[in-house]
Amino acid sequence: MEKKFVYADYAATAPVSDEVLKIMLPYFTESFGNPSGVHRASRMAAKAVAESRRKIAAAIGADYSEIYFTSGGTEADNWAIKCTSGGIVTTNVEHKAVLNSCKIRGNTTYLSADREGFVSAAQVEKAINQDTSMVSVICANNEIGTVMPIEEIGQICREKGVVFHTDAVQAIGNIPIDVRKMKFDMLSCSGHKIGAPKGVGFLYVRKGTNLEAFIHGGSQEFGFRAGTENVPAIVGLGEAVKLACERVTENAEYTRKLRDRLIDGLMQIPDARLNGSRENRLCGNVNVSFADVESEAVLLMLDSAGICASGGSACTTGDDKPSHVLTAIGVEEKYLSGTVRFTLSYRNTADEVDYIIEKTAETVEKLRKIRGI
Amino acid sequence: MEKKFVYADYAATAPVSDEVLKIMLPYFTESFGNPSGVHRASRMAAKAVAESRRKIAAAIGADYSEIYFTSGGTEADNWAIKCTSGGIVTTNVEHKAVLNSCKIRGNTTYLSADREGFVSAAQVEKAINQDTSMVSVICANNEIGTVMPIEEIGQICREKGVVFHTDAVQAIGNIPIDVRKMKFDMLSCSGHKIGAPKGVGFLYVRKGTNLEAFIHGGSQEFGFRAGTENVPAIVGLGEAVKLACERVTENAEYTRKLRDRLIDGLMQIPDARLNGSRENRLCGNVNVSFADVESEAVLLMLDSAGICASGGSACTTGDDKPSHVLTAIGVEEKYLSGTVRFTLSYRNTADEVDYIIEKTAETVEKLRKIRGI
Repeated sequence: MEKKFVYADYAATAPVSDEVLKIMLPYFTESFGNPSGVHRASRMAAKAVAESRRKIAAAIGADYSEIYFTSGGTEADNWAIKCTSGGIVTTNVEHKAVLNSCKIRGNTTYLSADREGFVSAAQVEKAINQDTSMVSVICANNEIGTVMPIEEIGQICREKGVVFHTDAVQAIGNIPIDVRKMKFDMLSCSGHKIGAPKGVGFLYVRKGTNLEAFIHGGSQEFGFRAGTENVPAIVGLGEAVKLACERVTENAEYTRKLRDRLIDGLMQIPDARLNGSRENRLCGNVNVSFADVESEAVLLMLDSAGICASGGSACTTGDDKPSHVLTAIGVEEKYLSGTVRFTLSYRNTADEVDYIIEKTAETVEKLRKIRGI
Repeated sequence: MEKKFVYADYAATAPVSDEVLKIMLPYFTESFGNPSGVHRASRMAAKAVAESRRKIAAAIGADYSEIYFTSGGTEADNWAIKCTSGGIVTTNVEHKAVLNSCKIRGNTTYLSADREGFVSAAQVEKAINQDTSMVSVICANNEIGTVMPIEEIGQICREKGVVFHTDAVQAIGNIPIDVRKMKFDMLSCSGHKIGAPKGVGFLYVRKGTNLEAFIHGGSQEFGFRAGTENVPAIVGLGEAVKLACERVTENAEYTRKLRDRLIDGLMQIPDARLNGSRENRLCGNVNVSFADVESEAVLLMLDSAGICASGGSACTTGDDKPSHVLTAIGVEEKYLSGTVRFTLSYRNTADEVDYIIEKTAETVEKLRKIRGI
């Protein structure tokens, strides 16, 4: 019997889509030029970068000149947070790229999320003071999938005249993004969650927003982000963002059904709890805690059954501390260490979901039995 | 007749080598995991990153734990320069990534290069004072190819107890690099000049060197460089660095012959001058100035003949100012605007060199004729 392989860690990373890889490949070996040159090899590369920028701008409702390519979501977050002056208002459930940048920067107010991971527009409004120059609220949480009331927060920020930044790394491809409608002034995006390669992302910066450069050197990216453009990855990113945005409604609807099937199945396991909101939740996110088991043991046993899932987020795995997000939303001690995150995508099937449910139930039962529970 | 294509802009960028692309490809679609996870997809990715780190460490005489992957040479330079405290001594012929990082950072002393682009160990020694914590000198100049007296400068820095950083982006693959022998404490390297893809590089940081993180977030790269590891590019970088270092002597010897043939040929053109040193010069670098012509016109005509060359460096093309390096070494006004950089590699042939000589001579003659010279 062939061994099953069920990947359910799409919030950590996704494979590069075939259609994206195909469009990238010529830029490694044939059209390999450095865009900053005058000869044909350079011109072809520059044209490809421009075309990708155009695709992304169109996909999220931005202007061509508002898209700045970066090495990924983390760099985009660092840039947005560290290169503005004045006070920042953020939340205690942000991605570490935002939280640790804020820590270095200082002058930050942290809003507490509620038990489902939400921060309200009213909380944001109350926290903004004379010194506040920027609000940074994650679009959709990477661990528990909570989708923030982004449009209302955007409205408040616009009214108060402060810059609104969002980490949309998990949102893009799962939620329709329109930077004008949602009143974003800055938006961070990563490629490798949506079928583009690792090592590339972008920061959307609305025209007129005050932002200094983060990486200095040559005059690439309109003089605001130095370093030779990562042409093949940028080409891949453009295509991936385009496809993700075109297909978002269809993919989200499909994935939501799988997610609900998975939640319903896992909730049949005794002493299980769903972390985050049941309603305003990313279409692919299932974050559950099981009492009296250790997350790592569950993950390793699931891995033996061919299932890839994660504990918290990939970006916190190096730490041995419990997830700051689960702690922030007040998950009780009893559940905290038995948390598993499954993140699905349009690539998953109902059969896979049923297999995950079956194996997770078996695993949790087995582990509890070992402990004599 | 098929149109000729002669690429002579290897200092700007190089194609990804077939052998490098081949080893990278599976990491886009098959072994696509995020290294920060516990399941099989993650473990395979983490293993590949570790293997690449090992290869690079071995190739340059470093320890495994001294290699930190970055998004490229520019990020590595920014990191090294901006994340140390105390005074810096550098030169006026550094790459813009170093110069512009120093500008942002302040507290920098700039040493003046001589007419061939050299800065001496004695100059460095004289400039170091109580406040100096770091010296940053480019290993080999990206525009004029001058190879600095790196070992002597390293010796002085070690004696004086200051950190020695070098931008080795152009040096690696052209000069044998041994970080212990050359007494480097930090070394920046880029992938795309040596057959690895764009968007990846590394910073070597000698154990015990005081350096803060530049990009904050997750705990990747021993907790010092946040952001999901760019696995395929890192895999490619490891292989490219290994091959470049294994083949450096052989490739440099071959390329040096082509370079000398090209210099000799171009020097037959009336009123031409070679910029930089004839002796201590990168094996592939030919930087020449022709009086009474405009660089851009030469480049466009060469491009029509299928030859890719550049004016200054690719990273300064966006600027409209004359090259800071040529200005620093005192190239006279008459020659300044007629500068062309050809950068060769082991991939070029003697026939290509002869073709470049023929077409450049024709071009310069034609352009001078138009001006009535």
